[in-house]
Amino acid sequence: MELPVVKRVAIIGIGLIGSSLARAAREYGAAGSVALYDGSADVRARAREIGLGDVYDDVSDCVRDADIVILATPVGVMGALVQTFASAMKADAILTDVGSVKKAVVDAALESVPDHIHFIPGHPIAGTEKSGPDAGFASLFRDRWCILTPATELADDAGQAALKRLSDFWTVIGSQVQVMDVERHDRVLAITSHLPHLIAFNIVGTAHDLESVDQGDVIKFSAGGFRDFTRIAASDPIMWRDVFLNNKDAVLEMLGRFNEDLAALQRAIRWGEGEQLRSFFERTRGIRQSIIDAGQDTDADNFGRDTKK
Amino acid sequence: MELPVVKRVAIIGIGLIGSSLARAAREYGAAGSVALYDGSADVRARAREIGLGDVYDDVSDCVRDADIVILATPVGVMGALVQTFASAMKADAILTDVGSVKKAVVDAALESVPDHIHFIPGHPIAGTEKSGPDAGFASLFRDRWCILTPATELADDAGQAALKRLSDFWTVIGSQVQVMDVERHDRVLAITSHLPHLIAFNIVGTAHDLESVDQGDVIKFSAGGFRDFTRIAASDPIMWRDVFLNNKDAVLEMLGRFNEDLAALQRAIRWGEGEQLRSFFERTRGIRQSIIDAGQDTDADNFGRDTKK
Repeated sequence: MELPVVKRVAIIGIGLIGSSLARAAREYGAAGSVALYDGSADVRARAREIGLGDVYDDVSDCVRDADIVILATPVGVMGALVQTFASAMKADAILTDVGSVKKAVVDAALESVPDHIHFIPGHPIAGTEKSGPDAGFASLFRDRWCILTPATELADDAGQAALKRLSDFWTVIGSQVQVMDVERHDRVLAITSHLPHLIAFNIVGTAHDLESVDQGDVIKFSAGGFRDFTRIAASDPIMWRDVFLNNKDAVLEMLGRFNEDLAALQRAIRWGEGEQLRSFFERTRGIRQSIIDAGQDTDADNFGRDTKK
Repeated sequence: MELPVVKRVAIIGIGLIGSSLARAAREYGAAGSVALYDGSADVRARAREIGLGDVYDDVSDCVRDADIVILATPVGVMGALVQTFASAMKADAILTDVGSVKKAVVDAALESVPDHIHFIPGHPIAGTEKSGPDAGFASLFRDRWCILTPATELADDAGQAALKRLSDFWTVIGSQVQVMDVERHDRVLAITSHLPHLIAFNIVGTAHDLESVDQGDVIKFSAGGFRDFTRIAASDPIMWRDVFLNNKDAVLEMLGRFNEDLAALQRAIRWGEGEQLRSFFERTRGIRQSIIDAGQDTDADNFGRDTKK
């Protein structure tokens, strides 16, 4: 395909994902220019300092000339934000987002989306535990999946062309694109992302509150497994609050299943049922290997972080 | 101190930890020679092939001339093993182990330990998700803690000298040694290692069993957080069965607290209590930073495994 994919992309929200998109769009030639807006004046100032693109103080000015507008804020504010700038978007432009939940975002935004633009919700399955405009980097989306959840109204030619344009944008910055419906997205992500984060936040909180174990001991001896959980439990609190509030049903369903399974393990430990524990633990290696084979994790010991081998 | 710390070390069990100890003892000069034994003839043959040390087909022959004997088997077989070889150990030699639980091991082994040797249980807080004699490497214990839990009978001069000798052995291969009592060890490890592994095994099992989500989707989109859990859920099933069976009380206590906390988060999600979720999630970043400051984890994004930055 010809580069740049689009002349101008506008990114609303300059955190880890937004700033990574700004860097990637320019580095890989996905967009000719990058417009940026953030609700925080401090963040806008920082984005100007580190030269992420054309930073605007007004969100409507930011989106006015953009071919693609990407919402990269916590999902809780997306609906209200769209109301403030959607009418300023030019005809045939694409409005998309990077939110970790889709149905709630679509429901909240849809009534504000004017007919002259294409609304194609999206979600790159990529990130780190860091936050803010300095945390981003251009290669964040390489070899990762990006899920797009277009509404069925896109079935016309202009809609299909817009979907192709947005897919090309993600492809150029290194991602593979998969199209699916919002319900499937929210169910899959509940188990692959939302529940793991909830569990990680929870176990780190449990350790934090333990009055019968010295806090220093928890830190010192964290290499026994605990430290793995602290990474994702260091993720942005506002982002994750909004995820759980906006994907409540799927998260509660997965959590119910998790709790049932955990109760069975708990019972096996209490009654000394070794064979049941062993056979349960045997099954889980296969999933790890499949993830490595699919290029979604490293096979290096300890994720390769102890590199003195 | 003078190297080697001891003339000869014997290692019983040639898996990840045993084979790492064999490599480390020679590479860093902790022992003049390394004797090895494993219950599996295949593992012994492999250890000979890759030249890990002097491999014996009889466990008593293996320990006979050793100054330090290290048990590196799953904890469930340690008690019975000690009975078979303890009388063959030479006077003033040290018997230690690397088991992840201490009280049950001590109770099982203690009656078989003859008076002429020093029994000093131990536990290096180090490992990877890999198993077997090929998985080990010499630097595994560097910058990690090793906990020793000597019985109070070591208070005499010979006992103190033995404790010093064993501490020197671990120090030379790169570890920091901390002495504590068995009860404290088992409680601390229940939260820093045993519960995290149980939770990881459980969530990977829950994902494995989900009939409402495509298995391929779980693999593809695992970079959203799930993949972190699959690493420790790929650890050795027999080792972990034995850990849970032998540290039942502490694990069940920590699991009870974890469940209480999780029920509170579940309730907050169900009732949309955003402020409670946010404030809970805010607390956990501090623990992550402390672990990084203590040198027990890397500060690199995603543990540094996505190294294309």
